[in-house]
Formats: sequence, C-alpha cells, structure tokens
Amino acid sequence: MPGRICIIGVGLIGGSFARALKAANACREIVGAGRNEAQLVRAQELGVIDAYALDVAEAARGADVVVLAVPVGSTEGVVRQLAPVLGPNTILTDVGSTKASVVAAVERALGTLPPRFVPGHPIAGTEKSGVEASFAELFQQRRVILTPLSHTDPEATATVRRLWELAGAEVVEMDVQHHDEVLAATSHLPHLLAFALVDTLARMEERREIFRFAAGGFRDFTRVASSDPQMWHDICLANRDALLDLLATYQADLDRLAAAVREGRGEVLLETFRRAKAARDRFTESG
Amino acid sequence: MPGRICIIGVGLIGGSFARALKAANACREIVGAGRNEAQLVRAQELGVIDAYALDVAEAARGADVVVLAVPVGSTEGVVRQLAPVLGPNTILTDVGSTKASVVAAVERALGTLPPRFVPGHPIAGTEKSGVEASFAELFQQRRVILTPLSHTDPEATATVRRLWELAGAEVVEMDVQHHDEVLAATSHLPHLLAFALVDTLARMEERREIFRFAAGGFRDFTRVASSDPQMWHDICLANRDALLDLLATYQADLDRLAAAVREGRGEVLLETFRRAKAARDRFTESG
Repeated sequence: MPGRICIIGVGLIGGSFARALKAANACREIVGAGRNEAQLVRAQELGVIDAYALDVAEAARGADVVVLAVPVGSTEGVVRQLAPVLGPNTILTDVGSTKASVVAAVERALGTLPPRFVPGHPIAGTEKSGVEASFAELFQQRRVILTPLSHTDPEATATVRRLWELAGAEVVEMDVQHHDEVLAATSHLPHLLAFALVDTLARMEERREIFRFAAGGFRDFTRVASSDPQMWHDICLANRDALLDLLATYQADLDRLAAAVREGRGEVLLETFRRAKAARDRFTESG
Repeated sequence: MPGRICIIGVGLIGGSFARALKAANACREIVGAGRNEAQLVRAQELGVIDAYALDVAEAARGADVVVLAVPVGSTEGVVRQLAPVLGPNTILTDVGSTKASVVAAVERALGTLPPRFVPGHPIAGTEKSGVEASFAELFQQRRVILTPLSHTDPEATATVRRLWELAGAEVVEMDVQHHDEVLAATSHLPHLLAFALVDTLARMEERREIFRFAAGGFRDFTRVASSDPQMWHDICLANRDALLDLLATYQADLDRLAAAVREGRGEVLLETFRRAKAARDRFTESG
C-alpha cells in the first residue's frame, strides 16, 4: 500500500480518484498539484487532498505514486518538471484519454520510458469539469484500461491496478495502439461529431431559433459538447491518426446514407437503422 | 370540448396523448385504431383508450377530432381510408415529425386540404416505442408546434391548441417550411448521425470489442439510435430536402475540422469546441 500519492491536476478525474482512494483508505496521504491555486484550496477544503503545492516537483517529492491527471497536451511539460524527483521506486501513472501520445510525451520528457511508468485511462467522466464536480463513486463499476509496455515492471502495474480496484473499477489491460483505436471510436469521434453539430447549428441559430425547439434526444446527443474544450482539443490532436482513420470511414458511411436519402432508397436507411438499433440495444443491455 | 377523439396509432406518442387527455378530462371518449390488435387490446387494458377498431374508418366514425399518430410515411394511406368518414366539422390533426410531407400526403389522399386539418408536431418523445412506453406526462412543459395553413379554420386550430395545452404543452405556431428546417437541425440530423455512427462502429465491433469500452458520453450520444427504425426511415425520406441541405453544411464543417486535426491547427479546434460548448451550455440553461 503506498504511503503518499501525488495527484497532478485535481479536477473531475484527479479529484474523484483522490476521493475514492481516501474513501478506501488506500494510502496515508494525498498531495495535490496544479496551476490553479483556488481549485487546490477548494480541494483541500473539501477534504479531497491533504496538502498541495503549485510546484509539481515539490508536490511529488517523496510520493510513492504520482498520478498525472492533466490534459494530455500538458503531459510532456509536467513530466519535465517532475523528472528531478522521480526516484527509481516512484510509480508514475496517468489518466489520459490517449495513450500513444502520453507514452511519447513521457519518453520525450525523460529521455527514456521508466519501468515504473504505467499508462492508464479510466473510462469514466461527465461533461463537467473541476474539483467541485468530482465524486468518489465516479469509477464504481467502470472500466479502467492500463496499457503497460513490454518492459513495464509488473509490480508497478499491479500497484496501479490495485488502486483503481479500490476505487471500485474493473481493470483491463490492452496495448497502446488498441486502446487508441477503441477510444477513437467510442469517445473521441462522438465528441468531435457533437462539438461540430452544435457549432454548425449555433451558427444558424440566430435566424431560426433552432435550440428553442430541441427536445430530449438533442439534449442527450449533444451532452458531450459541454465537455472541456481544451481537454478535447488535446485529445483530438493527440490521437490524430486513429481519429482521422475512423472519421474517414464514418464520412464515407454518411455519404452512402445521404445518397440513399437523396435517391429515395429507403431500404438502405431501414437496414442501417435496424442494424444500429440492434447494436445499440445490445450495448445497453450488456452495459 | 370535443366529445369523441379518435387516435390512429396508439404507440408512444398517440398513447401518451390519450393518457394526458384522459387525465385532463378533455373529452368524453377516446377510440383507438391501429394495425396491431395486441397493442390496442393492451391500450384498452391500460385504460389508455375506451374502445378500438382495427379499421380506421370505423374507429373515426363520429369522432369530433381525429389524431394521426402513425409514422409519417403511412399518412397518405391512412387518410385515404379516413376520407369517407371525415365530415365538414371533423377536425383532423397529426403528430408527425415532418410537416411539408404530411400536408402533401393529406392533399394527395383527399384531393384537397380541408380547412379543419391542423398539422401538428409535439417536440417530445423517448427512444422507446409502443403503448407500454406511453405516459401522461410526456408533453408536460414540452413544446408543440402547429403549422396551420393560410386557409385553416382558426377555430379548428384553437381546439387542437387547447387539447395540447390540456396535455401540459406549450403550443407555438410556425409555417411548415420553418418547422421542417428547424426539426432537421435539432432532431432529424442528430438521429441520422447517431444511427450512422453506431452502424459504423458495429461493423468494426467484432475484431475490436469497441462497445465494451464505451462510457456514459457514448451512451448519451447514441441513445437516439435506439429509436424506431421505421419511423426514422419515414422521417428522413419525408424531410429529404431540409435534411440533405443541413447534412451538406455539417459535412463541410466536419471536413474543415478534420483538416484542422490533420494539419495540427489546434486553434481551429479550440475555437470550434469553445463556441459549441457555450451554445450548448446556453441551451441547457434556457431549456
């Protein structure tokens, strides 16, 4: 059991992980770090963390486990600052939504990939941001993907796995590339599509009062467009290749549907919608 | 106050309207009609309707108000069957998600557009279907759009308005074309996008276990893809022009975003995501 855990970035994910670890008595002490002192003060007031520092190296000094919970685009800069205090026994892990880019960023920052670096990604979140939105149950019965590398120390992976299990999650391991493809499909592309749709409509809104007549389906469909723009900017760029591949497939499928609508080929629509409904209903039952 | 209301199609919308009208004592009697006798029997058992007939003309005979609550593609056929029993005082209204196509279908079926035909569309629903999913509160504080034509009898419009208000809805009037554009934006396009995405992913699923790693955002984004395929098939074809116009705009916007991802122009992503989040958050506050 680690004594001290340092969480860099005490927002929705970092804050919820801290709360869950505290609820499970998973460590002796949690130290937070971040750029926004007001957020850290609030996190301490809420009992999410025990102490904080604005300097990430200071916060991480002496920690057994350091958790990066920052937008993936900030990984390299933060790890550079951490470098001097990462000892041979310090476990470094992260919660980033993309894994190849985080692995590359850590390697650039440290000049090597330390054996006690365990890339991770909890498949959980809400469209909200910040420590105020965090809650200890966020990871209950949710999946956490770890993508240890071939030379990652199995003991480090086991420790990170144990922490997520204490937070209530089911931990699975897969390789970095597979993670990035799967997440492009289930998360990154849907976010991009929703942001794009809301933006398209917002630019038509003034003359047509569009949103006034939106119903629950629209609200659900666009919920993810209320997510943090900076975070999603980082993710889209960080998982560029998988995202663009999938977007190209999707656009081709959409072109095919548009052609069916244009040409009145209803059977194409019906088949597609039925397949989609069946898949979506199966997913809901299994979820 | 009408004595007898006939509802053709006692599913989610027709059934919920019937329940709401009963709860408000809005009429003496509700007669249902439809093709599926088991559904009608169930509707009667549930107290949603007082009586039913499989023959729509028989069900509608003597009704003061006839409500079409069938997939929009069935409008013409149903109205043809209704023609013999629609008297000069019978109010005909509908709940279809597209209005130009329904108006055209009624005109084709009757050879004219009767002054007591009041096209309507409640902006409410869930991804579920059938009378079992219906509930009296579905229209509470939801908007209902009526699109009366220039020669529609204002008294007929007022009666239909009053029924929806008794069901708890806020009624607004707009012209047919405007309705179809607005709904293409807030409902038809999002449904098409969600069906298309789930189908794209389902066809990749086998080798990648995609859905296993989907989180709440994906669940929200794809909820509308569990909607009734036949209904959405009808809607996409019925509102073809508005839908294709908007889809073309959306695809161009998506191309622009894809280019920004490809070329690493993060500022385009950030701007777009920020605009979208602001619009979506405003919509939620006002909703």
